[in-house]
Amino acid sequence: MKRILLTIEYEGTAYAGWQRQINGLAVQQVLEEAISRTVHAPITVTGASRTDAGVHALGQRAHFDTDSGIPPEKWPYVLNTSLPPDVKVNHACRVDGRLHARFSASSKQYEYRIFNRRQPSALRRNFCAFVPLPLNLDNMQEALPALLGRHDFAAFEAAGGTAKTTVRSITEARLDQAEDEIVFRITGDAFLYNMVRIIAGTLIAIGQGRKPVDSFARAINSGNRLDLGITAPAQGLTLLRVDYEGLL
Amino acid sequence: MKRILLTIEYEGTAYAGWQRQINGLAVQQVLEEAISRTVHAPITVTGASRTDAGVHALGQRAHFDTDSGIPPEKWPYVLNTSLPPDVKVNHACRVDGRLHARFSASSKQYEYRIFNRRQPSALRRNFCAFVPLPLNLDNMQEALPALLGRHDFAAFEAAGGTAKTTVRSITEARLDQAEDEIVFRITGDAFLYNMVRIIAGTLIAIGQGRKPVDSFARAINSGNRLDLGITAPAQGLTLLRVDYEGLL
Repeated sequence: MKRILLTIEYEGTAYAGWQRQINGLAVQQVLEEAISRTVHAPITVTGASRTDAGVHALGQRAHFDTDSGIPPEKWPYVLNTSLPPDVKVNHACRVDGRLHARFSASSKQYEYRIFNRRQPSALRRNFCAFVPLPLNLDNMQEALPALLGRHDFAAFEAAGGTAKTTVRSITEARLDQAEDEIVFRITGDAFLYNMVRIIAGTLIAIGQGRKPVDSFARAINSGNRLDLGITAPAQGLTLLRVDYEGLL
Repeated sequence: MKRILLTIEYEGTAYAGWQRQINGLAVQQVLEEAISRTVHAPITVTGASRTDAGVHALGQRAHFDTDSGIPPEKWPYVLNTSLPPDVKVNHACRVDGRLHARFSASSKQYEYRIFNRRQPSALRRNFCAFVPLPLNLDNMQEALPALLGRHDFAAFEAAGGTAKTTVRSITEARLDQAEDEIVFRITGDAFLYNMVRIIAGTLIAIGQGRKPVDSFARAINSGNRLDLGITAPAQGLTLLRVDYEGLL
């Protein structure tokens, strides 16, 4: 058996999220069906991140095991002919059988986009959260450094999270503005359930003056979800990349 | 009667183009229905550019006449509540009754996006032409200056064009690369039917070595459509803006 690691891009708009489920079509299912058709056997894939409905990915990763003779680098060509236009495999390689797409990941990077203009955007509607009122970007910038480092992010987890520990390390948290869009990027060793969307929602609340600039520091100290803003909408979030130590 | 000039953003994916027609839903129709519902009277809008099916707009312009008492600057708010998510009005102002959205336009700017990677993009599929083989960007850049200035672009018009003269002035033609995307921007006083997509298709052919670097100069001199490449796909094209002299 060979373990194949795929890099997958998808638009989450039409899907019930990454993870296979009873109600609604999941990206995982679409991918498993494409692989299973190819190798004429049922295949299960394991994804790095269980993105929610409406969340996108530029570099989701997933592994599966197969004894197929298809050369690893050919998998994108083979799968993309049968995958729908909104799910594509960008890269594939063979990895050690001990590498696990989720548990071996050393870091993940997410992007959250906020569309900040008085009128909503037709072109960016599925890729940004729409915030019509002006945001104080300076206050949002000032809030970010508190996220950096190793902290207990217990307050940053939505109900339904299953993590054993809520301690996480954040190595990057930055905001950039490009015309009408505010782009938030965050990198860490792992993220709790809805953590990035809770951070994005808090940033929006800080930008609107509805939460204090030190909200992140407060929530880390208090462990209290109420020190943070509401969970920002799914469509603003994109999983940019997942990295594994020793793997390019 | 007051003449109102709207600035409209739309994703063309689901539409049969700008112009109202018998087969398929046009952006013009959606907009006219929203305005007509608002003023309880049939309204016709006149657009600046008759974009094709699948072509997008960030700054299409259209005018209509009304005796409605709605303050001009309120039209975006009024219309956006009833327009579908893929068509939005970004701006409105009252203009002189002699201003015509199409015939008074002094310049138009378009963008054509090429996605250049071995595997297609799930996220950009509706906003880029997909070109899987490498492109020689230097050759594409070298081809551009020949477009600038006032020329007879007769060779650059698809069958079905209705322009009285094929002389046009091009003031900007530039290419930029951002990761996997090549972005072509062009500004001119007006464009012939399919002209930007024919230029984009020729640029792709030049980048692939299938057309000579001096193809634009040849076609301007010869007037021969065959000196140019095929018309590039609609989804790569976006109408960025339309300008009117003396109007901000």
